[in-house]
Formats: sequence, C-alpha cells, structure tokens
Amino acid sequence: MTLLMIPGPVALHQRVLNAMAKPMINHRSKEFANIYEECVSILKDVFHTKNDIFILSGSGTSGMEAAVSNVVDGDDVITTVNGKFGARFKKIAELYGNAIPVEYRWGNSVELDDIKKALENGAKVVTMVHNETSVGILNPAKEVAALAKKYDALFIMDGISSIGGVDAPIDKWGVDIAIAGSQKCLAAPPGLVAISVSEKAWKRIEETRAPYYLDMKEYRRYANKEVTQTPYTPAIPLFFALQEALRMLREEGMQERIKRHRRCAEAVRKAMEAMGLELFPCLNEISRHSNTVTAVNMPEGITDKQLRDGMREKGVLIAGGQGHLAGKIFRIGHMGIISAKEVLLTIEALESVLAEHGIGTGEGVAAAEQVLKI
Amino acid sequence: MTLLMIPGPVALHQRVLNAMAKPMINHRSKEFANIYEECVSILKDVFHTKNDIFILSGSGTSGMEAAVSNVVDGDDVITTVNGKFGARFKKIAELYGNAIPVEYRWGNSVELDDIKKALENGAKVVTMVHNETSVGILNPAKEVAALAKKYDALFIMDGISSIGGVDAPIDKWGVDIAIAGSQKCLAAPPGLVAISVSEKAWKRIEETRAPYYLDMKEYRRYANKEVTQTPYTPAIPLFFALQEALRMLREEGMQERIKRHRRCAEAVRKAMEAMGLELFPCLNEISRHSNTVTAVNMPEGITDKQLRDGMREKGVLIAGGQGHLAGKIFRIGHMGIISAKEVLLTIEALESVLAEHGIGTGEGVAAAEQVLKI
Repeated sequence: MTLLMIPGPVALHQRVLNAMAKPMINHRSKEFANIYEECVSILKDVFHTKNDIFILSGSGTSGMEAAVSNVVDGDDVITTVNGKFGARFKKIAELYGNAIPVEYRWGNSVELDDIKKALENGAKVVTMVHNETSVGILNPAKEVAALAKKYDALFIMDGISSIGGVDAPIDKWGVDIAIAGSQKCLAAPPGLVAISVSEKAWKRIEETRAPYYLDMKEYRRYANKEVTQTPYTPAIPLFFALQEALRMLREEGMQERIKRHRRCAEAVRKAMEAMGLELFPCLNEISRHSNTVTAVNMPEGITDKQLRDGMREKGVLIAGGQGHLAGKIFRIGHMGIISAKEVLLTIEALESVLAEHGIGTGEGVAAAEQVLKI
Repeated sequence: MTLLMIPGPVALHQRVLNAMAKPMINHRSKEFANIYEECVSILKDVFHTKNDIFILSGSGTSGMEAAVSNVVDGDDVITTVNGKFGARFKKIAELYGNAIPVEYRWGNSVELDDIKKALENGAKVVTMVHNETSVGILNPAKEVAALAKKYDALFIMDGISSIGGVDAPIDKWGVDIAIAGSQKCLAAPPGLVAISVSEKAWKRIEETRAPYYLDMKEYRRYANKEVTQTPYTPAIPLFFALQEALRMLREEGMQERIKRHRRCAEAVRKAMEAMGLELFPCLNEISRHSNTVTAVNMPEGITDKQLRDGMREKGVLIAGGQGHLAGKIFRIGHMGIISAKEVLLTIEALESVLAEHGIGTGEGVAAAEQVLKI
C-alpha cells in the first residue's frame, strides 16, 4: 500500500475507513443529529472555542468562500497573501467586495506593520491562512487577530491545515471565523469543512446576503431545530468517518496530538538539514515553519518528476510545488495520524532516491531518529 | 436493520458501502482521474447526453445553485413552482437575478400556457424540477424544454430525483443544464451532484461571474488538464462509492432500471388505491405520478407521528410532508436499488400500522403483488 505523505488528503485509520461502510441513515433523524452534535462538541474542544461551529458538506474552499461571502458585501477586505491559499482568499474577496492585498513572495513572511497600515485605512475584515500549505509556513494568526481586534475588524482564519494539529486557540486569539478541513489534521476523509462563528461575526452575517448553499444563517436555523440537522442533505458517510476520526483525536488528547505533530515536523526538518537540503520558507520573528507540511527547495541534479516518481516507486507519495513553484519545491505532508514510523519510511525513501542521483549525505534518517528518540 | 424508504438518501448496496472503505488516494493522480472519468462516462449514458458532465462535491442544492448562478447575472428567470424544490429554485433565482415565478399550489400540475406567456415577455432562462420529490409529481420537462428552445431560452432541469430512475434523455429533449443527485436514483451516498452543460449554456457561462466554489469554468478547466481533476479537493470516498453504484447501474442496464422503477411505483400506487388511500398530486394531461416517490394524503384517524413512528417500529422509514404539507401527506421513496421485496415489506408494514388505527382495507399487498407478478 502507498504511504500518503501529501498535505491532504491524509491517510485514514482503519477505524475511520470502516465507519464509512455503515448503512445509510435518514439525515433528518435523531440518529444523524447525535453524530452531528458529537462532532461539533469535539470540534469545540479542538478549536478551543465556545463559538458556534457548523459542518458543511464541501471542500475547504467552500468553507473559505462561506467565511468571506457571509460577512462581505462590497466591503474592503485585507487579504494577506504569501502562498496559494492566501491568493485564493484574495480572489474570493474580489468576488464579494474589494480585496486590499497585503502581498509577499510566496513563502516569505507576513509583516505586522503592513497589515496595520491597511487596517488604518478602515477595512473591517482581514483574512489570513494560518498554515499556508503551499509553502510550509505558519503565519502569525495570533498577532494578526490581536491587530484586527484593535481596529474593530473581523478576523477570518483559514485553519484548514492547522486546526487539530497545531495550537490554534480560537477564543483566546479572538478569531471571528475559523475554518478546519476534514482531510488534514483531523484525519478524516475530504469533503467536510467545519466553521466557527463568533458573536461579532454573527452581527455582520445577519445583515449580509450570502450564496444560497453557504448561507450560515440557514445552518444556524437548522442546527437549532428540535432535531439538529443541516439545511441540505449532508454527505452522511463522511460524517460517520469524521465522528470516528474525532473520537480518535479525543482518545489521543489534543495536547498529545500537537506534540506528535511538532515532533514529526521537527524530525523531518532536522533530516532535511542533515541531508544538505534547504527549507523553502523565509521566516521572520513572528512566523514559523509549519508543523503539518514541510516545503523543501528542489536540489540541483534531480527534477520534480524524477523525485516524485522515484518516491512513488518506493511506495511513498509526496507533493510538488503549486502554481509558479511547480518544479522548484517539494512538499512532505505530516499531519493527521502520521507517526515516527511513517516519517522515517519517508526520509529513508527520499535519501535513497536522492542517492541514486548523487545527491544528499545519507545522514537524514539518523537525524530524524534523534528527534524521534528511536 | 431499518429499511430506508424515504426519497433519499436511499439504501446502499453492500458493494457500494465496501467501496467507501478503500484507503485514501491523491486527488491529483491518474488513479483518481480514472475514477472520475469512468463516473462521467457512465453518467453520459445515464443522462443520454454528449454534453460535458461535471461532478461537484456538494448536495443537490449546491448543484441547483451552480446551474442558476453560472448563467444568471441580474437576468429574468422563469421559475416553475409546484413544490418545495421548485420554490428553492425561485429563491436561488432571486439571489442572482429576478425570479418570474410560474406558481401553483404544491402538488398541482404545471400548465404550458403559463410558461409560454412568461417566455413571451422575454426571459431567457427557465428552471423546472423534473421530479418534484416533495409532492410526488413528474413535471413535463420534455414539453417545457421544447418551449424554452422555441423562445431561445436556456432550460435548467433539476433531475436530482429523476435521472437514473426515469426516462430523461437530456439531448433529445434539449436540456441545457441538468442536475442529478448521487443519493437518489443513482443509489450512491449523498454528497455529490452531477451537472451536464450544453454548448448553448457554455456561451452564457463564459460571460457570467459565478460563485467561487461553483464556477463551472473552473471545473471545465481542471477536467481538461493533462490529468483529469477537480479544482478543489473532491470528497474521494463518495467517488469510490459513486463509481461502484454506476457500475451496478450499467450492469442492470438503464432501460431495465427505468422499468424496475416504473413497476415498483405502479405497485405502490395500486396498493394505495386498493387500501382506500388517495394520492396527493393533481395531474393534468402532461404531468404524471412520480415513479421514484409516492405522495399520499394522510388518512383521517391517524397522525403523521403515529404513522411514521408505527412504521419505524416495524423497521421501515418513510417520509412526511415538507413545509406546509407537514402532517398532511406522507411519502414513500422507491428509488435506487429498491425491488419488489422492499415495496411489499413497506406496504405490509403500512397496512398493519393503519389497521391498528382501524384504517384501510387490508388489500394493499395483494394489489401490489399483482403488479409485481409475485
């Protein structure tokens, strides 16, 4: 079986796979309500929030669009961009209002001063991708949330590939709308997106006309019915899977899970360093390397195709660069249920493929083992 | 196990359930492309179309919104309404343009003259729900498609609960955008929606700004890439399931499947009649009883709750009325993989529950058996 080390969809545990094979149920029944409510309840712990959480049947992108379209109606939106998903927020903001981009080269760090300047001009919504999957950087969501609050702006955080794997306390930071994808750190299949909504965001949502399928007011109305439900038929098997994945998360414990992600990421980074490879992101004092995906500059002497085909032949799937970074970087996903074993297998395969092209030091596995204490 | 006789989500075959438990794959791989392409290829036979077909990760409603929002930008839209889903089209049309409703009491028939009059006033888009699930009526899509064509208007058909179970030859009728739901006649789980797009519709789509997640231009662009893909991460396990469900459909044969749906529906209707119950829809010469869901007036002497709870206790789930029809009708879904066996079990349970309240003749099962030739 192929080892999935791409930054989502992630490998699924057999328990989660089995859950999907359960017979179909009525989506307007107490049976479905119980599943939905349990998912929301665990997600509130994962998000560290008392805000409402809703689960939509759609990809992470549908969640990004739900967030923007429910609070923006011709308004200015500060969109921080330092990767593909930040750029996506900008495009969505342009559909519903005016994007005020605070833009950097992909992989470069966000500077707070730039956002502050943009806020001083009066925009009342800020979007940021917490973990920019495309470049392996963890953006300063905490700091930007505080800034947004100071200027009375709503803060929308794409936590699609961070929530459930790294620390992201929604209420403590003051994130008005946070988005988590099912197929990333939550270790469920793709197709669901969880969205938290603050009281402050609700005030704006109530006066905004949203697209029909993404109208959060309807999700709230149906969640508050006598039997909790979704306005439109939900992707039921994915809820079966999410419930099981969230139970597994609860069994592990959120703090343990964050630690595991940190340890696996640290092992990957140390291995890259020991192998003589360069990490792609350019950090400043408030940005960090991602603990869920590592982006590495493509070394000379091998093409993207050679590298990824070679890895695939050894049974490991990794990702390439997106957009203009295609061929220039490669990315290793290490989120969800990934443990030391998968990390080591990946580094071993990588060393072996690179060695075939005369690249690397052969010291990657040992460096990773040291971090993983194996 | 409970027998699911609601009008979607439908019961799934074990083969379809098993398919979902397969390990996760990369959605930008040849492996996923093969699955997507096979689904589209079989769906083209099911739709009887040479038009492009795309599969979106979302409920049927997201497909309805995709259809309208991709061709309407402030335009007049004739929305035929004789049930809940027609009313939904009207609401969606109001979001993107001006709805020109051609409206009837829910369950009453559509009159061609009314649509003709509306077309004479210049609207260039017509929406219709082919099989109005909420009231058990099959609307005259063929006739309305011909009318729309005559007036050079685009015809959008919600075939969510008809396509795959009843005759709906998209190209022959001239349907510009047709929508099928995964969880209805196709007998797959909920969460996917298939949309066909005619050349004429594309011309309009190319000049219309659609919501981000539902922009058909992006679905086309990604489908045409070297490796077929979707623009946003698809709900992969549901594609595994849809592939298997469509293979089963192909094994049965589309004509056989239509016959089976017709026979089961006829058996249900004859049984209702024999039991002294009244079907809800008011037909005219161009509308028909639905062959995928039967709507029945609630008999006196029993409440909706008593009826449906009683049925559930006997292991059969049926549906109530929606909106203002709650408590006034009940609905039996008979689509997907439903056969004579399930129909008879349902009627038997219904007779038994009604008998406990002194209602019915006890002649339902026999009447159904005669149609089913058992």
